[in-house]
Amino acid sequence: MHIRLATEADIPDILTLIHALATYERQPDAVQIGEAELHRDGFGPQPLFECLIADDAGEAAGFALYFPIYSTWRGPSIHLEDLFVQPSHRGRGIGKALLARVAALALGRGCARMQWDVLDWNTPAIDFYRGCGAVMLEPWRIMRVSGAALARLARQA
Amino acid sequence: MHIRLATEADIPDILTLIHALATYERQPDAVQIGEAELHRDGFGPQPLFECLIADDAGEAAGFALYFPIYSTWRGPSIHLEDLFVQPSHRGRGIGKALLARVAALALGRGCARMQWDVLDWNTPAIDFYRGCGAVMLEPWRIMRVSGAALARLARQA
Repeated sequence: MHIRLATEADIPDILTLIHALATYERQPDAVQIGEAELHRDGFGPQPLFECLIADDAGEAAGFALYFPIYSTWRGPSIHLEDLFVQPSHRGRGIGKALLARVAALALGRGCARMQWDVLDWNTPAIDFYRGCGAVMLEPWRIMRVSGAALARLARQA
Repeated sequence: MHIRLATEADIPDILTLIHALATYERQPDAVQIGEAELHRDGFGPQPLFECLIADDAGEAAGFALYFPIYSTWRGPSIHLEDLFVQPSHRGRGIGKALLARVAALALGRGCARMQWDVLDWNTPAIDFYRGCGAVMLEPWRIMRVSGAALARLARQA
């Protein structure tokens, strides 16, 4: 198993992994993007994300998808959007290896932090992340405006 | 009052607003960046953020600082890192105007969403955001690894 940066050739595998993660997160119908969007958004002149593949003899065993964010307290940071290992490949440290690789990338780019979101019922993931040195930002919640509400808000500009 | 994109000349005001927001969030000593970092990170060839200023006759009454993020379910999105209006300028709809302007920018860039973080004790802000059409992503929490723990994790890559 080795970890490498994804290329355009990995787009079908990335989409498979995105769907598998959504199903694990109990939102199997949430994925509204496809290969064309991944191509446009990740592999064009100004990519919106980067992706690492855990490659097991040509098979995509897992992935980590991340992008730069910014903290007005600490400066450049990395947000890990997705981290997932296919169930058939678990128990071999692939998740940890992917997380560590993103951490190394973050450090190399001068980031003081990396962060990600987790579902509060996903105790195995939370325990795993804590074991990797992460802390939960207890009092923080995420708010979102989307769809018709976003359009309504934008009209008030 | 008018809302405009920040320029390098606004960096001292942006830093003042960042400090004022940190104090409001009960973390007055959290800001570890200064004017040099804001210059490098926001106004170079590849900016990590953009910033809107609510300009009241030459005075920076408030600001919104944001950057692109990516959802593997919905595609391009905007993260609003900071939204703040100086207390002396509140009650005139400046916060709403800033939020609406970021929403309009997000829509114009093909985003299906925008999102941000809020402290769970900040009921006035939560109520304000809900009135603007936002929802809280109840089961999600934020995890972070930083400093020595980030370096330790990176060494395992």
